[in-house]
Amino acid sequence: MLHIFKNKHKWKTDLQNMGAKNVCLMTDKNLSQLPPVKTVMDSLVKNGINFKLYDSVRVEPTDRSFMEAVEFAKKGAFDAYVAVGGGSTMDTCKAANLYASSPHSDFLDYVNAPIGKGKPVTVPLRPLIAVPTTSGTGSETTGVAIFDYEHLKVKTGIASRAIKPTLGLIDPLHTLHMPERVVANSGFDVLCHALESYTALPYHMRSPCPSNPITRPAYQGSNPISDIWAVHALQIVAKYLKRAVRNPDDLEARSNMHLASAFAGIGFGNAGVHLCHGMSYPISGLVKKYKAKDYKVDHPLVPHGLSVVLTSPAVFTFTAQMSPERHLEMAEILGADTRTARIPDAGPILADTLRKFLFDLDVDDGLAAIGYSKADIPALVKGTLPQERVTKLAPRPQSEEDLSVLFEASMKLY
Amino acid sequence: MLHIFKNKHKWKTDLQNMGAKNVCLMTDKNLSQLPPVKTVMDSLVKNGINFKLYDSVRVEPTDRSFMEAVEFAKKGAFDAYVAVGGGSTMDTCKAANLYASSPHSDFLDYVNAPIGKGKPVTVPLRPLIAVPTTSGTGSETTGVAIFDYEHLKVKTGIASRAIKPTLGLIDPLHTLHMPERVVANSGFDVLCHALESYTALPYHMRSPCPSNPITRPAYQGSNPISDIWAVHALQIVAKYLKRAVRNPDDLEARSNMHLASAFAGIGFGNAGVHLCHGMSYPISGLVKKYKAKDYKVDHPLVPHGLSVVLTSPAVFTFTAQMSPERHLEMAEILGADTRTARIPDAGPILADTLRKFLFDLDVDDGLAAIGYSKADIPALVKGTLPQERVTKLAPRPQSEEDLSVLFEASMKLY
Ligand SMILES: NC(=O)c1ccc[n+]([C@@H]2O[C@H](COP(=O)([O-])OP(=O)(O)OC[C@H]3O[C@@H](n4cnc5c(N)ncnc54)[C@H](O)[C@@H]3O)[C@@H](O)[C@H]2O)c1
Ligand SMILES: NC(=O)c1ccc[n+]([C@@H]2O[C@H](COP(=O)([O-])OP(=O)(O)OC[C@H]3O[C@@H](n4cnc5c(N)ncnc54)[C@H](O)[C@@H]3O)[C@@H](O)[C@H]2O)c1
Ligand SMILES: [Fe+2]
Ligand SMILES: [Fe+2]
Repeated sequence: MLHIFKNKHKWKTDLQNMGAKNVCLMTDKNLSQLPPVKTVMDSLVKNGINFKLYDSVRVEPTDRSFMEAVEFAKKGAFDAYVAVGGGSTMDTCKAANLYASSPHSDFLDYVNAPIGKGKPVTVPLRPLIAVPTTSGTGSETTGVAIFDYEHLKVKTGIASRAIKPTLGLIDPLHTLHMPERVVANSGFDVLCHALESYTALPYHMRSPCPSNPITRPAYQGSNPISDIWAVHALQIVAKYLKRAVRNPDDLEARSNMHLASAFAGIGFGNAGVHLCHGMSYPISGLVKKYKAKDYKVDHPLVPHGLSVVLTSPAVFTFTAQMSPERHLEMAEILGADTRTARIPDAGPILADTLRKFLFDLDVDDGLAAIGYSKADIPALVKGTLPQERVTKLAPRPQSEEDLSVLFEASMKLY
Repeated sequence: MLHIFKNKHKWKTDLQNMGAKNVCLMTDKNLSQLPPVKTVMDSLVKNGINFKLYDSVRVEPTDRSFMEAVEFAKKGAFDAYVAVGGGSTMDTCKAANLYASSPHSDFLDYVNAPIGKGKPVTVPLRPLIAVPTTSGTGSETTGVAIFDYEHLKVKTGIASRAIKPTLGLIDPLHTLHMPERVVANSGFDVLCHALESYTALPYHMRSPCPSNPITRPAYQGSNPISDIWAVHALQIVAKYLKRAVRNPDDLEARSNMHLASAFAGIGFGNAGVHLCHGMSYPISGLVKKYKAKDYKVDHPLVPHGLSVVLTSPAVFTFTAQMSPERHLEMAEILGADTRTARIPDAGPILADTLRKFLFDLDVDDGLAAIGYSKADIPALVKGTLPQERVTKLAPRPQSEEDLSVLFEASMKLY
């Protein structure tokens, strides 16, 4: 007996290596009833690690929901965090860790300028293990946390290497319970991370060159490293997203999409995203009554992946002239026959390929189908302007007029 | 004037951000006369950073040459290191940093077991900036430093995340002066890093599973992340190595090979290499009189890249049965027509493709051409046995008999 006892205690977990004795486990109300959270709790119990559960993460978090999680974290005086969920959970947990580690900071201190003050994070944070359960955000790999700033009705975020998770556990078994629309929408997020980072302003065209390398932005523009991740993620999306959406038991497809999510995350986490994401923030922030199928929440919601993908045909028609070969290459990866394609048609070819892809996956027919009309365009444009952290990574500069045209072209897709 | 003066001092370098005031600049005697070192020295002078030059790095370093560099580092009490050169320089600089930061350690303390004690590194090291000037080792991305243990006439190394450079500067302009054979041989190193890491034992077949994640080996086996780097690096080698060898002015080719070197380094640095590398250590360690063309050194030398690539046709014939599809895929990337290939022929097809590739690049005709004969095989096998840190990553276990056969099959290539 003694022998067995000893043997059992030889096994150690990552949390024990981190010296964690009082762990904050974060998730959302829906997930707290599902197998991924149960698996994690069982493991914590089995290894004798104390933890408290916070399951009030809001799906598509807001400043208010972030702050509630921060309060919980401050009170708990935790020495490590485990986030089990989609981007909403991982992002909330990053914010909780940050502000609990910096208790005298104002919430806006670390929020991206111009909405917040964009101060650099200098305090040490606690270890955070991120366990993604969707295949979309890649938040387990990034130093980004996104929320809806209710007061301005616009999404913004916190971006700092300091909030990047210590460890990400990419276990595809956690994705098997994802409902169909969550697979589709989070998959579109992967699609846009790949498309946008691959077409972002090249890193050597970003200017001005900072006078100190330490002030290089987190988003560097497209570069040979991020290109690799973008192309691979896109190839996986092309091959597996439809299968993953249609069949919850297709472990091969769901596993590959789960990897693609992390791959695209590593890519855009260093290259950046641009217009689909910049324009998505007001699209989800200004939501009126749209209720997303398969999202078990009590508030209107345009899921992030849907909000980014609806403008993609218009956006890539607009950006194609800056790198037509890349746009054609992406169309080809997504299944277009580009053998006889002409360079000036790169934009429309990619846009058509995307429209077909979205149609096949039962995506709503444009912004009109989720409740917007022409009258909303000025507000959507206004909500995009403060997103210059990402929009300035678009390969082409955009006037307000350009943004209007892009929103208008996205009202109807098919 | 004052304005200009102020502006000038606003610009900061990475070394200044690291607080470096007393820098050790390492290189070898040959490079110390060439533009890459001059560029770095000019930058140090211009930015007013104090430094001392150590240009006694030995090409293909030994324990003795490492120790001399360590002595220099200890005396200099440096607060940062800059290595400008190939793997020989970067590896020497890693060792100098390590032992100067751990002055009471015995040299063998950190050397890989079973030759050394393989102790984990717990002391903090100084920042090290690695500036590769060859396109081969990827040492700027790895926590590995290789040397020839003269006493045993065998190569071994130090492997620890702790010695991984803080920063790598991958500037292709530094590669333009590389002589033809250095381009070829260092390119073969990239080739083998890619081939070996792609065919290494898959990460989920490595056993036993460590009871604590912290004791996972640095070399994990092939995995979805390292696969991506391996395939990309191989594609670049296939497209650009011949051009890079033949034309020093082909900046596109040399730039791509320089990137491929780092890509393959990231890949094998986490997947590992196996038989070509394990068997190469005695091949270079037991060198008799072979003088490598284009290497400006005063001692016999089998360049690392040559020592790994000469066994590659035999090695991949041996390993093919474990993952024939991957072997065929690599042959195809290297230019073979595999449309009608049969699975059992994967090994010979890849081997023939490699032979042709090496023949086209004027590589010596096997181990016999660099001075070995059948009589040396027992010593070559004996020198491979202690390399189990890498050989155990081969997808197939090897008996001493197997190793003999592999060396014998590598005596003549064409
Ligand atoms: N930090 C980043 O880098 C980054 C990047 C992109 C998006 N985001 C943000 O992430 C959020 C979106 O995250 P998301 O798309 O991952 O979804 P989510 O976290 O908002 O979850 C969506 C819904 O799916 C449910 N769900 C999640 N996993 C499940 C599973 N395995 N089984 C069953 N149900 C499951 C949730 O309970 C929820 O109802 C947005 O706020 C977005 O802005 C962040
Ligand atoms: N640490 C690792 O991860 C790792 C991996 C593979 C190999 N290695 C080791 O690296 C060493 C080999 O390094 P290498 O192949 O980069 O070559 P090297 O550093 O041994 O240099 C080879 C020769 O090329 C010259 N040279 C280098 N750059 C030049 C340039 N730009 N212009 C002109 N001449 C130049 C050098 O002066 C030298 O004469 C071996 O000891 C090998 O075992 C280490
Ligand atoms: Fe996103
Ligand atoms: Fe090597």
